[in-house]
Amino acid sequence: MSKRRYYLEDRALDEAITRFEATLARTGGVHLLDSETIPLAQARGRITAAPVWAARSVPHYHAAAMDGIAVRAAATAGATESSPLTLTLGEQVVWVDTGDPMPPGTDAVVMAENVQVLDETTVAINAAVVPWQHVRPLGEDIVATELIVAEGVVLRPVDLGAIAAAGYATVTVRRRPRVAIIPTGTELITPEAAAAREAAGQPVQPGEIIEFNSLILAGLVEEWGGVPTRLPPVPDRQELLRAAVAEALADHDVIVINAGSSAGSEDYTASIIAEFGEVAVHGVAIRPGHPVILGVAGGKPAFGLPGYPVSAVLTAELFLRPLLYRLQGLTPTERPKATAYISRKLLSPMGEDEFVRVTLGRVDGRLIATPLSRGAGVVTSLIRADAIAHIPRFSEGLHAGAEVTVELLRPQAEIESTIVAIGSHDLALDLLAGYLQRTGAGRRLSSANVGSFGGLMALKRRDAHLAGVHLLDEETGEYNVSYVRRYLPDEEIVLVHLADREQGFLVAPGNPLGLRTLADLTRSGVRFVNRQRGSGTRVLLDYQLRQAGIDPSAITGYEREEYTHMAVAAAVQSGAADVGLGIRAAAQALGLTFIPLFSEQYDLAIPRRHWESDLLAPLRQMLVEPAYRQAVAALGGYDVTRMGEIVAVRQALPH
Amino acid sequence: MSKRRYYLEDRALDEAITRFEATLARTGGVHLLDSETIPLAQARGRITAAPVWAARSVPHYHAAAMDGIAVRAAATAGATESSPLTLTLGEQVVWVDTGDPMPPGTDAVVMAENVQVLDETTVAINAAVVPWQHVRPLGEDIVATELIVAEGVVLRPVDLGAIAAAGYATVTVRRRPRVAIIPTGTELITPEAAAAREAAGQPVQPGEIIEFNSLILAGLVEEWGGVPTRLPPVPDRQELLRAAVAEALADHDVIVINAGSSAGSEDYTASIIAEFGEVAVHGVAIRPGHPVILGVAGGKPAFGLPGYPVSAVLTAELFLRPLLYRLQGLTPTERPKATAYISRKLLSPMGEDEFVRVTLGRVDGRLIATPLSRGAGVVTSLIRADAIAHIPRFSEGLHAGAEVTVELLRPQAEIESTIVAIGSHDLALDLLAGYLQRTGAGRRLSSANVGSFGGLMALKRRDAHLAGVHLLDEETGEYNVSYVRRYLPDEEIVLVHLADREQGFLVAPGNPLGLRTLADLTRSGVRFVNRQRGSGTRVLLDYQLRQAGIDPSAITGYEREEYTHMAVAAAVQSGAADVGLGIRAAAQALGLTFIPLFSEQYDLAIPRRHWESDLLAPLRQMLVEPAYRQAVAALGGYDVTRMGEIVAVRQALPH
Repeated sequence: MSKRRYYLEDRALDEAITRFEATLARTGGVHLLDSETIPLAQARGRITAAPVWAARSVPHYHAAAMDGIAVRAAATAGATESSPLTLTLGEQVVWVDTGDPMPPGTDAVVMAENVQVLDETTVAINAAVVPWQHVRPLGEDIVATELIVAEGVVLRPVDLGAIAAAGYATVTVRRRPRVAIIPTGTELITPEAAAAREAAGQPVQPGEIIEFNSLILAGLVEEWGGVPTRLPPVPDRQELLRAAVAEALADHDVIVINAGSSAGSEDYTASIIAEFGEVAVHGVAIRPGHPVILGVAGGKPAFGLPGYPVSAVLTAELFLRPLLYRLQGLTPTERPKATAYISRKLLSPMGEDEFVRVTLGRVDGRLIATPLSRGAGVVTSLIRADAIAHIPRFSEGLHAGAEVTVELLRPQAEIESTIVAIGSHDLALDLLAGYLQRTGAGRRLSSANVGSFGGLMALKRRDAHLAGVHLLDEETGEYNVSYVRRYLPDEEIVLVHLADREQGFLVAPGNPLGLRTLADLTRSGVRFVNRQRGSGTRVLLDYQLRQAGIDPSAITGYEREEYTHMAVAAAVQSGAADVGLGIRAAAQALGLTFIPLFSEQYDLAIPRRHWESDLLAPLRQMLVEPAYRQAVAALGGYDVTRMGEIVAVRQALPH
Repeated sequence: MSKRRYYLEDRALDEAITRFEATLARTGGVHLLDSETIPLAQARGRITAAPVWAARSVPHYHAAAMDGIAVRAAATAGATESSPLTLTLGEQVVWVDTGDPMPPGTDAVVMAENVQVLDETTVAINAAVVPWQHVRPLGEDIVATELIVAEGVVLRPVDLGAIAAAGYATVTVRRRPRVAIIPTGTELITPEAAAAREAAGQPVQPGEIIEFNSLILAGLVEEWGGVPTRLPPVPDRQELLRAAVAEALADHDVIVINAGSSAGSEDYTASIIAEFGEVAVHGVAIRPGHPVILGVAGGKPAFGLPGYPVSAVLTAELFLRPLLYRLQGLTPTERPKATAYISRKLLSPMGEDEFVRVTLGRVDGRLIATPLSRGAGVVTSLIRADAIAHIPRFSEGLHAGAEVTVELLRPQAEIESTIVAIGSHDLALDLLAGYLQRTGAGRRLSSANVGSFGGLMALKRRDAHLAGVHLLDEETGEYNVSYVRRYLPDEEIVLVHLADREQGFLVAPGNPLGLRTLADLTRSGVRFVNRQRGSGTRVLLDYQLRQAGIDPSAITGYEREEYTHMAVAAAVQSGAADVGLGIRAAAQALGLTFIPLFSEQYDLAIPRRHWESDLLAPLRQMLVEPAYRQAVAALGGYDVTRMGEIVAVRQALPH
């Protein structure tokens, strides 16, 4: 087996776009799509293919604008309250309701208020009118042949109404681009097939991968105005991919192959695109998304997007989105931008344009951007992201606290109403996010898991509104209070109790190794999985080990660190470790056995100015809400008796 | 016929909302809708009805993160480039590709780059690895039972992907509220019926009104997450409306009746709602939209929206939108706001909250808001509006130049790229809007028709980028130049020629009265329709009348003013007048006969700083574009030979 070449090229982003454009222009691969005429009721969001000129005036007749009598204005001259004028009902003195056509020969309306009925044929009016008073003349709103909606306009509900008013029941719009999405990979299995198999008791096997990229790409194509077709996954065989592309070309405007875009032995995407047309670019100096392919197949734009979901989404946004807009004759709108401060150092490779997803929250007036995992395979970074920070080529990255311009992925209002929690992870916080959402108060909880110490440091840097903490003071046996005093001496902090929770061993079902005490961790062949330094669980373990006089170096796996309770549980479930220290809920969730050892106090540390803020009002309310309390208790291993109690209010030390 | 009472009540907006809320709460008329489980591929934009917890970890097995050989890390100790280590392929030394499951007993991957194949069973490695190096451990991205998406979240494409990755092919979402839209009015005719009749040569009659409100309301309901049903128009008979409501209540969550919400003799909406439930509010002190009805029918929210389109849209936004959001458990997002300067005085009645639609454009750094027609029936004000200005109750309005906060109806970026034209109207400008759109340069032309003088005044106030002008200097016979010098002495103005156009009489087809010269206007029985003072056409007329020694007071209808060429043409077409002065294109458009009298020069007056700006670059380009030139010539009555010529550059006078 020889060394493989992974990327055929390493083109700068701008250069890649220019090359792709040139190839499209040369091969005619991009042009406005043809049009179709559809009923107005189906035309919302579609784009006009031609200007719409009014076929009818609105109103299309002179209409009474008041209830009253239609008259010739000249016939009312001199009428006043003190000397009313008597008129005889007839062809030019006629009762009308608002909207009625003005009878021939009339040119004004005397309001009903100014008319007194004398008898069946005679009325008296106590006010004169001038020509066209209380009349909506023909064409007052729209004159036939007037421009109603220009070409290339995205139709809104009011446009549909105006087009109907101007005399049409249909409208001619640009056809939506049809996009074929072809997943490739022998290991891929559709979500539907996986669900069916699991329902039949046949779980998905190691090495099989759920094909979910096409679901994301199809949704994005829809958002960008296209009509996606998700094709079934094509196994890694050149002739099968060739057949799939040939078939897709027959009735689509754009081809998207995902993935096979690397240059490995089973990566046929580039060669198939070349067979049907040409490859303009293979490999762009961006991160993630390096091995993207841009080309033309059968005279149509063709893309090979990388297989990792974050790479697939980013390259679709960079290259597919502007193309779909152009096919529809639209200018792509830019995402709204904001200035934020990066909460931690971000190193970036010099040679690449890097796009880093971040979460955002406004803390003490500053918009704080916290980078999410930069792994191209981490789909949760896509769903948790609030914005994207672009680290340009030839930049080495950002230092902590640096100002950075970010592109917003959520409405600004949603970001402004985000409560930022940084600290120790707890399932009760996950639940809280859902309950806050349900209050309708419009609060969102964004929670980053960096351990209890990390949370206190985030409060110190003013990067968060609150921190979940469970830090044992090894001298006093008291939780959290002394740590807050020591690490946040200048802050006035409210410590609110969330729950008491059990800590214990997470072991395989039935506890096959019979682990009962900390001393059992030093037994030969027992593989432990630890939590990271700074986490409350780690502090608890180290304290208890010292109390028991056990040397950590005697524990196999003590150095293997995971960042959440669930990651520890997963390590035990998979057999990668035999035991970890964690909470009951994590064991319960993955069907492990839980051996309770200790109880610990999990509090929220909240600077008083945040605790008393409007932003956190719904959270204060939730901590005394029976429904939430019961939901936490139902997780197992939680004692919620003291939920919502103020444990302590730490005054800032005098300076 | 006695005086009618139009509004049963006159409640303040806040009070109306409170009363409506209280009625809904008391009658159970608002609650979260039930849920339904649907395929992920159909779930974009839907709202989760429950939290989604991961059913599967991602990855669901320990996966190789590189191509290479999977090994036990301990077995690689000591391997370096200078002293490679030889390993025998077997159960714990296995070739793997990225994504392959790690074979049992292995815990790290040596990258292919660091492996040398010695023979079929032996390899040499030149680097040691540590446990879990180049491995994506089970649950690295998602751990089974972890929260993926909270309840009440609007699903985006990436959420669908994450839910699929976490083990599902379906998702449980809230049902979309079903909204029945019932148009009422004997005079209503659907756009489809009108189109069918006109295709059959039977035009819509005076007094018949095209029912287009339901098309707008249905589109808005869709935008707000509901499923609309547009019912056929119900004639003004109480028993028919009763039957329609009864039927609609059977399978809808919300009832919208449009209109019959006044208190006139044929307005049954309030009494029918009261029959099925109760009316909470009838009449709110807002403008437009005063006669709105808020109530409950059959235990469901029921609305009577006013019949004029602007009133219907405003009341739907104020009252229906928040309700639909609540039924879906969503917080209504507020529209983005901006600070603008109002371009002209705006009087507002003290007793009402008024909502005025405005156009926006950024001129010389200031966002300028220009009020549109405030007629509740003017549907074009809905389509032209860029924002809404709210004039609160107990305010008398705004003086020209006052600062006002507006709610944006278009993306800020679109507003920033708007070219603001204020001045004389010309069809060539309408065409220009479409051509600018088509360039893809993202420019929008917003054009307000206030006549040539009005345009120069707008430039003086810095409310516009350009003004269309055709002002004849009565002394020199020259167009525009002397006016620019006189009225804009402090500005450096570029005058660009757009077209020479014919001015003449617009008369009924065949010119039945045989009108040939200005003197014919003074003939007995000839009814003239004039343009407003300040318009170029009016200046031309007055000049020519003086030249011909004709006294304007001898012309019947000289005092009747219309604001556009097309309005003049419409007056002639309808028979309300016999003749007007205007351009050939207007006559052509409405099938009138045109009697050419004069030729005039139509120029664009543009301050040099705008003329040379990026914003106007696509417009500069368009003036030399053959396609646009030909389209203007095709309108008829235009000489485009000199289009795009710089007529004059007026220097600012020295101070």
